[in-house]
Amino acid sequence: MVKESDFNISEDEVRELEEGEILVAIKFLSLDPALRGWMNEGTTYIKGVEIGAVMRCFAAGEIIQSKNSNHPVGGHVSGLLGAQSYSISDGQGLANCDLEKGPLTWHLGVLGMPGMTAYFGLLEKGKPQAGETVFISGAAGIVGSTVGQIAKIKGCMVRGTAGSAEKGKYLTEECGFDAAINYKEEDVSAALSKHAPNGVHVFYDNVGGPLLDTALMHLGRGARVVICGAISQYNNKPMYGPSNYMKIVTARGHINGIIVFDYIKEYPKAINEISTWLNEGKMKTKEHKVNGIDNFPEAITMLFTGKNFGKLLLEV
Amino acid sequence: MVKESDFNISEDEVRELEEGEILVAIKFLSLDPALRGWMNEGTTYIKGVEIGAVMRCFAAGEIIQSKNSNHPVGGHVSGLLGAQSYSISDGQGLANCDLEKGPLTWHLGVLGMPGMTAYFGLLEKGKPQAGETVFISGAAGIVGSTVGQIAKIKGCMVRGTAGSAEKGKYLTEECGFDAAINYKEEDVSAALSKHAPNGVHVFYDNVGGPLLDTALMHLGRGARVVICGAISQYNNKPMYGPSNYMKIVTARGHINGIIVFDYIKEYPKAINEISTWLNEGKMKTKEHKVNGIDNFPEAITMLFTGKNFGKLLLEV
Repeated sequence: MVKESDFNISEDEVRELEEGEILVAIKFLSLDPALRGWMNEGTTYIKGVEIGAVMRCFAAGEIIQSKNSNHPVGGHVSGLLGAQSYSISDGQGLANCDLEKGPLTWHLGVLGMPGMTAYFGLLEKGKPQAGETVFISGAAGIVGSTVGQIAKIKGCMVRGTAGSAEKGKYLTEECGFDAAINYKEEDVSAALSKHAPNGVHVFYDNVGGPLLDTALMHLGRGARVVICGAISQYNNKPMYGPSNYMKIVTARGHINGIIVFDYIKEYPKAINEISTWLNEGKMKTKEHKVNGIDNFPEAITMLFTGKNFGKLLLEV
Repeated sequence: MVKESDFNISEDEVRELEEGEILVAIKFLSLDPALRGWMNEGTTYIKGVEIGAVMRCFAAGEIIQSKNSNHPVGGHVSGLLGAQSYSISDGQGLANCDLEKGPLTWHLGVLGMPGMTAYFGLLEKGKPQAGETVFISGAAGIVGSTVGQIAKIKGCMVRGTAGSAEKGKYLTEECGFDAAINYKEEDVSAALSKHAPNGVHVFYDNVGGPLLDTALMHLGRGARVVICGAISQYNNKPMYGPSNYMKIVTARGHINGIIVFDYIKEYPKAINEISTWLNEGKMKTKEHKVNGIDNFPEAITMLFTGKNFGKLLLEV
C-alpha cells in the first residue's frame, strides 16, 4: 500500500532557463492510479520513478517564462510535469490546453489522459455495437464514468460497479447508466444475472481481482474484455490472477488492454468529440479537488481507499 | 484428479437398429484432455456427462450394420461414439474416415479433433507470421507437436516445453522444433530469455498454471496468446489464475482461445493439407496405444500424469 512516508517534500530554487525551455507554474496535479505502477522498480511500458527523483505526475499550468517560440508565455500546457509547483520543460510531450474546449482541470481529466483512456479503450479495443451490454468496473471513477457515457452515446446498455449508494446514484441519475451495482453491498454475480441476462459484450476493467473473475463468468458470445487497470491489486504482490480466464475461450471472446500513449496522435479528434458532448450536455464530469501540494502524499492514498468522488486533482 | 473408480464397466445387448441408424464396431477410442472437462457438472461449451451415462469420447470404427443409405456397411467413421465397443448412431456429427488420407488412428489424432485444434488454433487464432517466435506448452502432446510442426512449415521459430529429455529430443530431432525446454528440470523463464530473446509472438497454451504466468512475462509486442487447454489445472478447483495477465496490455497483445467445433465446416481443407504434409514427410505424428476397453479408466489418468508419449489411443 502506498503511504505518506513514501514521499518527501523539498524546496529548491528555480534555475534559469536554457534555450528551448519553458517554465510552467503548475496549477493542478492529476492524481491517477497509474502513479502507483510508476512507483514500482523496473520497466513496464515506462520506467519506474527512481528513489529521490521528482514523482512522475500529470499536471497542468501556465507558461510564465519561455525561451521556446512554440510555447509562448501565457499559454497553458499539460503533461508529465511532475508533482511540483514549477516545472522546467523543453515542451516535448506537452499538450497545449485549449481553454475554449473546457477549463484547465478538464484537460487533466475528461479531456486529458483519463478521458483519452476511456475513449480509445472503449472504442478501439472494446468496439461496442449499439444494443450490446457494456459492463464497467470502478464505474464512478473518471475513466469508468466517461466510458459509460460514451457507451450510452453509442447506443449500448450500460452497467457499472461503484462503492457507495451515492456513487451509484450519480451513475444512474447523472451519467445515464442503466444500472449501478454496489460491489460492497450486493452480490455482483447475482446483479449481473439480473441486469445482463444475455451476457456482457464489453467488459471494461479498472479494478481487477475477484471482480474480474465474476465478470468473466458473465461474458456473452464474442465478448471483448478491455483491461485498463487493476486498482484493487496495485498494492498486492503477486496480483490476484483470474482463475476463470478460460471463460474467454468458451465465450469466443478475447482479452486485450489499453495503453493510452499509443493513441497520442489521435488525441485531438477525441478531445474535440468529448468537448462537444460535454458542451452539449450529453456528458458530465465530476471533480474532487484537494488543496495544497503538501497534501499530495495524503491525496494519492485516496485513490486506493475509494475516498475520492470524481476526478481527483490537487490544486497547487 | 480423475481416478479409476470414477468409471464402471458394464455389458449390454446391442439392440436392433431403427430406420436411419448404423451400428459401428469401435476399433479405437481417443483419450483426450477434454474428457476431464466433460466430467464436470454443468454446461460450458458442451453439457457435462451425467452420472451413469456412457462416457463421452471420440472413437473410430467400422460400420457393420446400416439402415442409413449415407453410411453403408464397410465404411469407417469417427466422432463422439462414446467409450464403448459398439455404438448405434444416426450418423449425425460423424466424419467419414478416408483411409487413403491415413490410417484409422490418424483420424482420431493428427487428422482428427486434436489435429484440427492445432491447425485452426494456430492459424486462425495465433495467426503466426514467418520469422515470428511461437512458444508451445505441452509441446510433446498430439496438439502441441502438430502446432509446432505447422508453425515450422509457416516459417516460424518454434520452442516448446516437454516433461522429459526423451520427449524434448523427439521435438527437436523428429518434429523440427528449434528448442525444447524440460519444464521439470529447467528454469523455463531463463530458457525463454535465452531461446526467445525478442519475445514470444504466439503462445499456444495447453498447460495453464504457473507456466502460463511465465510465458506472459516473455510476450513480444503484439503477442497472441491462444488458450487451448490447461491440463495442469483440470483437476484443481479453483484453477490457478495467471497473476501476470496485465502483461497482455503492455505487450499490446490479446488472449483468445480455440473451440475446434466452430471450424467443423473447414475440417476437410485442414485434413487434406495435414495429410499431404504427413505423406510428403514434412510432418510426423506419434501414437501411444493401450489395449482393451477394460483399461479405459487407467488410460485416462495417463493424460494427467504425462505417462503417455504420443497420441493416446485405446485399441478396443
